[in-house]
Amino acid sequence: MPMKPRVYNFCAGPAMVPPEVLDALRADLCDWQGLGRSVLEVSHRTEAYRALQAKAIANLRTLLGLGDDYEILLLQGGASGQFAMLPYNFLRAGTAADYVVRGYWGEKAARQAARVGTVHTLREPADWTPGAVYAHVTTNETIAGTRLPEIFPLPKAPLCADMSSDILAAPRDYRRYALFYAGAQKNLGVAGLAVIAAQHDFLSQARRNLPAAFCYLEHAHADGLYHTPNAFAVDALCHVTDWLLREGPQNVWERNARKAERLYAELDASSFWRPLAPKAERSLTNVTFRLPTAALEEAFLAQAEERGLVALRGHRALGGIRASLYNALPEAAVEALIAFMRDFARVNA
Amino acid sequence: MPMKPRVYNFCAGPAMVPPEVLDALRADLCDWQGLGRSVLEVSHRTEAYRALQAKAIANLRTLLGLGDDYEILLLQGGASGQFAMLPYNFLRAGTAADYVVRGYWGEKAARQAARVGTVHTLREPADWTPGAVYAHVTTNETIAGTRLPEIFPLPKAPLCADMSSDILAAPRDYRRYALFYAGAQKNLGVAGLAVIAAQHDFLSQARRNLPAAFCYLEHAHADGLYHTPNAFAVDALCHVTDWLLREGPQNVWERNARKAERLYAELDASSFWRPLAPKAERSLTNVTFRLPTAALEEAFLAQAEERGLVALRGHRALGGIRASLYNALPEAAVEALIAFMRDFARVNA
Repeated sequence: MPMKPRVYNFCAGPAMVPPEVLDALRADLCDWQGLGRSVLEVSHRTEAYRALQAKAIANLRTLLGLGDDYEILLLQGGASGQFAMLPYNFLRAGTAADYVVRGYWGEKAARQAARVGTVHTLREPADWTPGAVYAHVTTNETIAGTRLPEIFPLPKAPLCADMSSDILAAPRDYRRYALFYAGAQKNLGVAGLAVIAAQHDFLSQARRNLPAAFCYLEHAHADGLYHTPNAFAVDALCHVTDWLLREGPQNVWERNARKAERLYAELDASSFWRPLAPKAERSLTNVTFRLPTAALEEAFLAQAEERGLVALRGHRALGGIRASLYNALPEAAVEALIAFMRDFARVNA
Repeated sequence: MPMKPRVYNFCAGPAMVPPEVLDALRADLCDWQGLGRSVLEVSHRTEAYRALQAKAIANLRTLLGLGDDYEILLLQGGASGQFAMLPYNFLRAGTAADYVVRGYWGEKAARQAARVGTVHTLREPADWTPGAVYAHVTTNETIAGTRLPEIFPLPKAPLCADMSSDILAAPRDYRRYALFYAGAQKNLGVAGLAVIAAQHDFLSQARRNLPAAFCYLEHAHADGLYHTPNAFAVDALCHVTDWLLREGPQNVWERNARKAERLYAELDASSFWRPLAPKAERSLTNVTFRLPTAALEEAFLAQAEERGLVALRGHRALGGIRASLYNALPEAAVEALIAFMRDFARVNA
């Protein structure tokens, strides 16, 4: 089969990976670090693997601006695994947690927690319940394409967050959070891994004596090696964070801001496009909009695909179009999308 | 850095991957199925991913000899995740489970279950407790290098097994088991994935309303797509099972039997070598032995490494030497090891 030219991939996740990272991963499937075998075939008990994991975590610590008062864990199971682990570790009988629910993912997190204990759901990150054992927010909702305000009144309870779809996509004071997590397959590499950062003080209050695979303290105690890690995803995380550091996070964040601004400006310039998120809540990473008719949307998606602009279909719950603009999506992809939108509107508006 | 020639890797896991599979995985990091992006960058909601997962499961069904009365799930978290999930799903208050403990991994599985409910540990897979809700065995112990007899009196309770280190390494009647699981990084591909096979009848008795990430029935209900799967590991599983089918499982199993027989014969031929496992319990996949002194063992490991025979160090709990002979390890590796052992014994015996 002839190689197809690389497309611009607007998928909400698993998302585009920087081409440099794909090159590095391919090389690591040959001879990793001169060991005569691939990164897939090296024991996690070796110095080589431990150094890889330590580097990935050090990179994250730098990028997130976290000190040694935070534990960083790289666990399997993605953010959905954390929907279960967080309440299982902190939501004891007789306690309750606050969950801010403003979309699909916040609601999903709250529903999982409600299978473990008592959950109060709130619409605004302000009306915190006194005595909550923790408070949970979702910083960005991929389906509706909305984001939480960056600044809101802090709860008295430790603040926890699902940041899967906007971690390291913009400047943020991560130290406001006692614990946060993100699946890696949007901004941090590939599927099969969750990054969890937690203040030691908060973590020390977690339950002990849980089955080890579900227990934060067991994973922390074992330096993240309680069980065989997903070394390939850790390697990808290391390459992606190396790439972010090389590019300069400030440059990446400015680029992300330009990408979103240009696309929203295009959507606002003609009534042909119907952006879905309220202006004040517009997501930086997931831009959602509709066209006048479903038939036009299908034509739009098909013609975009022909131009190498792929995975633009909105989530089935909402329909329409969704362009995800994570870190690895180049500005040229947004330029190509806008050029196509203009052509399409000229013919169809 | 110049590429090092590929070594013979006797690692107990993550283990060697067939070179053909590594080649295929590298290609899949370029343009996967003509989609203009890598396998890492394709949504799990696409037809392409669903077809990949369906093929991996169909291959497993063929190789394991299982019909549609078994559900096959591909979940993150490896076998250690299953140590937690199995009791969490089946070990209700007021019930108890039997765990056969004959080594490190059996003990670890039992200890995790004991954090969830009542566990009876047995030494022999015979003295089953009446009324157990399930009975659990570990078919092969990687650290001691021992295996369970293939045939033993079946319990009345549904039989469950950790088969991480010998799944598809030899013929087996998998239909004796109500549920079995294996981490993929020894015989089935790469780390970050567990294969779980379970009879529908048994599975239907599992708990509901658990947090979904921990709940077998939720994963089954979502066709294994409750959350973003580790697509790379599923792709590796598909390539490894394709490779097994091409090689012919019978041929692979005969090769495995020859590999183990030849190595044990070499160990039995001279008192210089001190095989660790009782003869009747010798593992097919993990051959453990000691040399007369710790200094000789260090010299053995260093010289083996120079000959490109790597990861032969025994587990730290036991010391000595361990040669793991999983499916992807070629017979030539065992021949090279034996040739080296003869040279080493000639000089040092």
